[in-house]
Amino acid sequence: VAKGIERETLLRPSQVLLDVLGEPKCPIAVLSGPSIAPEIAQGLPASVAMASESPELAVRIQHLISRPYFRVYTNPDVVGVELAGASKNVIAIASGCLDGLGCGINAKAALVTRGIVEITRLGIAAGAQAETFSGLAGLGDLVTTCFSAASRNRSFGEAIGRGRTVEEALAATQCVVEGVETTRSITQLARRLGVEMPITQVVYQVLFEQRDMREAIDELMTRPLRSEMETQ
Amino acid sequence: VAKGIERETLLRPSQVLLDVLGEPKCPIAVLSGPSIAPEIAQGLPASVAMASESPELAVRIQHLISRPYFRVYTNPDVVGVELAGASKNVIAIASGCLDGLGCGINAKAALVTRGIVEITRLGIAAGAQAETFSGLAGLGDLVTTCFSAASRNRSFGEAIGRGRTVEEALAATQCVVEGVETTRSITQLARRLGVEMPITQVVYQVLFEQRDMREAIDELMTRPLRSEMETQ
Repeated sequence: VAKGIERETLLRPSQVLLDVLGEPKCPIAVLSGPSIAPEIAQGLPASVAMASESPELAVRIQHLISRPYFRVYTNPDVVGVELAGASKNVIAIASGCLDGLGCGINAKAALVTRGIVEITRLGIAAGAQAETFSGLAGLGDLVTTCFSAASRNRSFGEAIGRGRTVEEALAATQCVVEGVETTRSITQLARRLGVEMPITQVVYQVLFEQRDMREAIDELMTRPLRSEMETQ
Repeated sequence: VAKGIERETLLRPSQVLLDVLGEPKCPIAVLSGPSIAPEIAQGLPASVAMASESPELAVRIQHLISRPYFRVYTNPDVVGVELAGASKNVIAIASGCLDGLGCGINAKAALVTRGIVEITRLGIAAGAQAETFSGLAGLGDLVTTCFSAASRNRSFGEAIGRGRTVEEALAATQCVVEGVETTRSITQLARRLGVEMPITQVVYQVLFEQRDMREAIDELMTRPLRSEMETQ
């Protein structure tokens, strides 16, 4: 079970499958959404999105894996579901940084609001549908990852916000923190597609160019005042 | 400082001002967004939306009250900012119910995702702009209220989720739980405008018609499986 954007090639998981396996004998389906694993294991309610270019396959898997506590919605937008699942981990690192700095929940809510805007912008440029990003695989998963104590990307960001270096924060966890490599890939993808992603850019600078997160927040807060509509 | 929808008349605060004061000598501006008060008092970073039909007034207040830790965005959509601030309290009660039932963060993320969809639907029917609901006064405020331990509406919902009656849960707090009356008003407004608001309807039934929240969740989770795009 994997998500992300492959280093250097910038391929999505379904594209990696095609690349490795050659012309597929059957269509591909991808699943993503707010589904922190320990909660699913406990049978707590969750809803996720499953995307395939084949509506038949999507509906077949939907009925195969849905449970009374695990509700699967189909979605035709494979690109959007894959990109949303990967890119939200970058915003989750930023969310953790805010936690580590003790910035509070008002700041995190503003981050989620602006985060989904820039992820959507990337998705549209990559050929995805905007609706996917306001759905379960987009906003839903972003909210879970930014607020769950169990999220590894958020926890990693929290360590950074508390002043640890990237190496120290990575060494402190036994888990893979996907978001670190994803920050590189998404930054490259955004550059290739000519998309502005200010939060992702700050995370990149904090992780790889020794930028101070506190100083970056101060700069974001004191930019010239403007209209909310200009910034969508 | 007030928000909500007036009982029976279903007027928004700016409409109440016009109703009481008569033809205004100066335009009206309204402010809303993720701004839990104790955090603002501590000088933690927050961003909010301020709406007025007068761009000049909006920009004047924006510059008057912005601080390095309190960033005000202008927004031309008075209806949207007012409706978002009121209706999100109903979703916050539902979010608290999930907390009280121990449903976990996957379920809350799905609630926020679907909650903003139905609030947006109400807003559009009332003449507001969809963008406002994906902005600070909409999504931003909803996220804060659904996840903040300090939110009175969420805490009230949590008590309901733990099995208290509405009377017990109200008696347990010294504060005004705006969301209870707002649930009535928004339900009436949705009916008047012919808008479907399934989460708000469940909250109404739980608060005023003795519906069991756990049973309502089970029913939502076991409806016929479908596509995410159908449900937008």
